[in-house]
Amino acid sequence: MATIKDIANKLGIAVSTVSKGLNGASDISDDMRQLVLDTAVEMGYASKKMRTTTTRKVCIFIENMDYENIDQFGYDIIVGFKLSAARRHWEVTVVPSSLTLQTEEKYDTYMLKNGYSGAFFLGFTLHDDWVMQLNKTTVPSVLLDNYIERNNHVGYVGTDSDEGIDLAVDHLKELGHKKIAFLNGSKNSMVSDQRYSAYVNSMKKHGLSLDENLIEFGYYVPDCAKYHVPSFLKSGATAIICASDLIASGVIAEVKKHGLTVPDDISVIGFDDLPIAAQLSPPLTTIRQDRIDLGKSAFLLLDGLIHNVSISKLLQRAKFIKRQSTAPCKIK
Amino acid sequence: MATIKDIANKLGIAVSTVSKGLNGASDISDDMRQLVLDTAVEMGYASKKMRTTTTRKVCIFIENMDYENIDQFGYDIIVGFKLSAARRHWEVTVVPSSLTLQTEEKYDTYMLKNGYSGAFFLGFTLHDDWVMQLNKTTVPSVLLDNYIERNNHVGYVGTDSDEGIDLAVDHLKELGHKKIAFLNGSKNSMVSDQRYSAYVNSMKKHGLSLDENLIEFGYYVPDCAKYHVPSFLKSGATAIICASDLIASGVIAEVKKHGLTVPDDISVIGFDDLPIAAQLSPPLTTIRQDRIDLGKSAFLLLDGLIHNVSISKLLQRAKFIKRQSTAPCKIK
Repeated sequence: MATIKDIANKLGIAVSTVSKGLNGASDISDDMRQLVLDTAVEMGYASKKMRTTTTRKVCIFIENMDYENIDQFGYDIIVGFKLSAARRHWEVTVVPSSLTLQTEEKYDTYMLKNGYSGAFFLGFTLHDDWVMQLNKTTVPSVLLDNYIERNNHVGYVGTDSDEGIDLAVDHLKELGHKKIAFLNGSKNSMVSDQRYSAYVNSMKKHGLSLDENLIEFGYYVPDCAKYHVPSFLKSGATAIICASDLIASGVIAEVKKHGLTVPDDISVIGFDDLPIAAQLSPPLTTIRQDRIDLGKSAFLLLDGLIHNVSISKLLQRAKFIKRQSTAPCKIK
Repeated sequence: MATIKDIANKLGIAVSTVSKGLNGASDISDDMRQLVLDTAVEMGYASKKMRTTTTRKVCIFIENMDYENIDQFGYDIIVGFKLSAARRHWEVTVVPSSLTLQTEEKYDTYMLKNGYSGAFFLGFTLHDDWVMQLNKTTVPSVLLDNYIERNNHVGYVGTDSDEGIDLAVDHLKELGHKKIAFLNGSKNSMVSDQRYSAYVNSMKKHGLSLDENLIEFGYYVPDCAKYHVPSFLKSGATAIICASDLIASGVIAEVKKHGLTVPDDISVIGFDDLPIAAQLSPPLTTIRQDRIDLGKSAFLLLDGLIHNVSISKLLQRAKFIKRQSTAPCKIK
């Protein structure tokens, strides 16, 4: 591992100058400080503070996700992460991300500068600057619902869609449904791909035939229901599995618009078990992602990466939550 | 959670008798002790000793796997598990399993009786008595390379076959190979299924056509090579990916028998990176399963389950190890 002396030799400057650069002293120029930091990152330098166990800091970067109130998706994930981190005596900082943050500085530099040993990314897409830098980072990093290939320092945490969707199909088949439609989230999302193949596999496993008129990609918003529910109904669907609770809320509204009743005419199942799921009318049968556990698992994975255990994927069990939006199929 | 009093009430006996049964006192009959233990398991009783952090014991059950010497598959896995456990102050006992052990007593009863908070199963199959009991167990349990559906207390740990096989195909395509055969392990094994679809997906991703004459299931032993290599050669294979190093060792021998040379005529890639891989002639290019890390991950997962985080799957990165059994394709 590179030392302060290595950095000084490489740059041809004094060890004390390198030290000032790394510690943010004010008596060197901003340019010199930046050069020292960039060189330190390039050479894989980790400060003594980062290597010893006295200061142990990780952070959560969050964007495109609400988390400040208890009924928002990110809230419990952060709580779970902090609970697990506290048990191991790690300090956690939540850093709302922005375009500026990501363009101002390289990810590795930011992490070194702030003394973070690792990070958990919530709500990012593969097009974010920092996420694009993750295929080369040496900083332990965990992504929710996104996967980076071939980098031992990066892991992915998520909920097991296979088992989740399978639980939904299982339940509907028990109730006598055969024409089970699937309204997915947006294309080109890893989670949508997983839920799509989970649906296909589970339908086959249950001996139910696949009908392409009953499978659609939409978006992870309620509004997408109006584009797809009409054709589902036309094609004879008696049940609709949705890739999220928000989609399901739109589906219930759309079914009602057609003068039909949930669950008497059409059964609807969501995914996530957001706090709103139980408040819908009728209360939504759904597949729970345990968000506290997701947060705990994310820390567990990050802790593994920090200790050089190269975990690539960690999946959480999905749980079936029966409420009132599903009922026996009336059509024989 | 059930208390000693609950057990006493259910059985209509004194609390002191229950206590004697749970603690193995000699002044009650064997039948009574068994009845107390079975009832305790059924009611989900966990002793105070198990619930407090002063005694923390987990175990590793092992069968069908050599582990006593450093060059055997199980050795490093156990070392990794123990290293991770020691860091968290857990005591680990290795228990070689046998048919008798599994038929004498139910799994949950055995665990309660011996005060183990959880177990890691190495080398078991889905037909083992205790593994069959895992769909209902409440004892945190981790399986290597086997998956139990829908039980929050059981997790699966393994190596990411998708990325592993993809690294192999990538390397061979770089070397100009197109007719890449795949000799898999035994059918009806989860790992073989994973490696099969990993091969199919990676070939497609690399724009290489699939030829059913170049895909075979064998067994995880060298001997299976002689049944499949001749037809691979007849079908024009210039490279063979094997689902394990042992299979690859058989493939190399079989290729030589046909008067051909590895890697000049046929490139061969293994999977595992067992200590023998580097000793073969030529030394084997292979996909490494880091067994120390697998063991560490297994403990990490078990620790999660013990703390009620319902992780279902944890996958480890595979690593590409380039040695001398692969070379540029001579056929244009």
